[in-house]
Amino acid sequence: MKKKNKKVNAAILIIGNEILSGRTQDKNTIFITNWLNYKCGISVNEVRIIPDIEKTIVKNILELSKKFHYVFTTGGIGPTHDDITAQSISKAFKVKYEYQKDAYKILENYYGKKNFNDGRKKMAKMPKDAKLILNPSSAAPGFIIKNVLSLPGVPSILNSMIENCKKYLIKGSKIFSKTLNLYTVESNISKQLGLIQKKYKKSVDIGSYPFFRLGKIGVSVVMRSDSRNNLTKVEKDLIKLIQKLKIQTLNI
Amino acid sequence: MKKKNKKVNAAILIIGNEILSGRTQDKNTIFITNWLNYKCGISVNEVRIIPDIEKTIVKNILELSKKFHYVFTTGGIGPTHDDITAQSISKAFKVKYEYQKDAYKILENYYGKKNFNDGRKKMAKMPKDAKLILNPSSAAPGFIIKNVLSLPGVPSILNSMIENCKKYLIKGSKIFSKTLNLYTVESNISKQLGLIQKKYKKSVDIGSYPFFRLGKIGVSVVMRSDSRNNLTKVEKDLIKLIQKLKIQTLNI
Repeated sequence: MKKKNKKVNAAILIIGNEILSGRTQDKNTIFITNWLNYKCGISVNEVRIIPDIEKTIVKNILELSKKFHYVFTTGGIGPTHDDITAQSISKAFKVKYEYQKDAYKILENYYGKKNFNDGRKKMAKMPKDAKLILNPSSAAPGFIIKNVLSLPGVPSILNSMIENCKKYLIKGSKIFSKTLNLYTVESNISKQLGLIQKKYKKSVDIGSYPFFRLGKIGVSVVMRSDSRNNLTKVEKDLIKLIQKLKIQTLNI
Repeated sequence: MKKKNKKVNAAILIIGNEILSGRTQDKNTIFITNWLNYKCGISVNEVRIIPDIEKTIVKNILELSKKFHYVFTTGGIGPTHDDITAQSISKAFKVKYEYQKDAYKILENYYGKKNFNDGRKKMAKMPKDAKLILNPSSAAPGFIIKNVLSLPGVPSILNSMIENCKKYLIKGSKIFSKTLNLYTVESNISKQLGLIQKKYKKSVDIGSYPFFRLGKIGVSVVMRSDSRNNLTKVEKDLIKLIQKLKIQTLNI
């Protein structure tokens, strides 16, 4: 991984009619966001789910690649007619859509010359000058061109490839996170919590999420920051508040 | 539900840092997309996940509400400082952010006058002239203003409210769907499948998705259309192909 930078961000572009039709639960967003946040210090600032339509993919690639340091796409790099991610990215960046020599060799070797049919060959076609993201599960590589990294849609295969993205990324500051689970309701603490957030608005991000667990309701207060020091300060303020209001907690 | 229209579409805007940080798996997209597709004949053409930042919400509400018939937002309508959906939508549409009288009454009645604190009152604040989407689980209503429908982020609560959106929607054509599960690999059928898609490109949408089940690999071929007749034609072509290639299936 390349040298550290302070704030690095990314967007995820999920390409696939199967998610928009409700057929398939997207599991790639949570996997990629966790990996980027905690392994790379890269925050994900936007996710979009779009259909397998070329002009839609082109438009979104151009918009997101301008706006964020990195764009991760998932889906649409297989052998069938609805796999149009690589050709659409080529069009977006106005480069040729052609065989990537190393990808061609990898796939020919994997399937054997005799079985290397047109569908399989298609998976070696990429935007000109794309570099490969190797695939230890099923050979067909992903690729990176400019700041866009393209991965497959099948979660198990994507998961096996993610570490191979690392060498192309600049690392951001580590993000620290801490959660307090309180047995109360949000409206009991909302005012004071708002004041604490105001006090630390530039350094710590405080989120409040209701939970229902074993028949009890509660609130998870999540603190996130790239400063462990400020995180500890917020936590202290919160513990004071909890003690003052005599709120029971799960984890302090 | 209002009278039928041919093609009706929607976008979903998931508002919440907890999804972008990888803390929480989004479950609202698959629920809303299924409901809209199969109960309302409304196709979901885009989903965006964005953080709890006012200017980001404003921008996305304006973009999506212009582009699609409906926008469904989830998240950010609770009592805490990070719940800023209602005020952001007010800002987007340049209307006042104020107490909605019916919502105020519902909440006051639910909590009782004595316990109706500021946090709870906040949940009655909405864009001026918003209409309510009633909440049978926890009282706090969602709302609709123009073509934007705002629902809470907690899936169980959102799910209990969804039917109350129906009266505000125009129904689209029913979407029919059929899946064939084949014991083959995508690259074996990709060429012929592409030809069938080409033949029916204006009427049926064909998707191809690899699966792994009980140690066997296969391909789910999903056909979707608003014409049952055309769906049957595609299915017949596919069955011919399957028989020609001697592919075993799970369901024919």
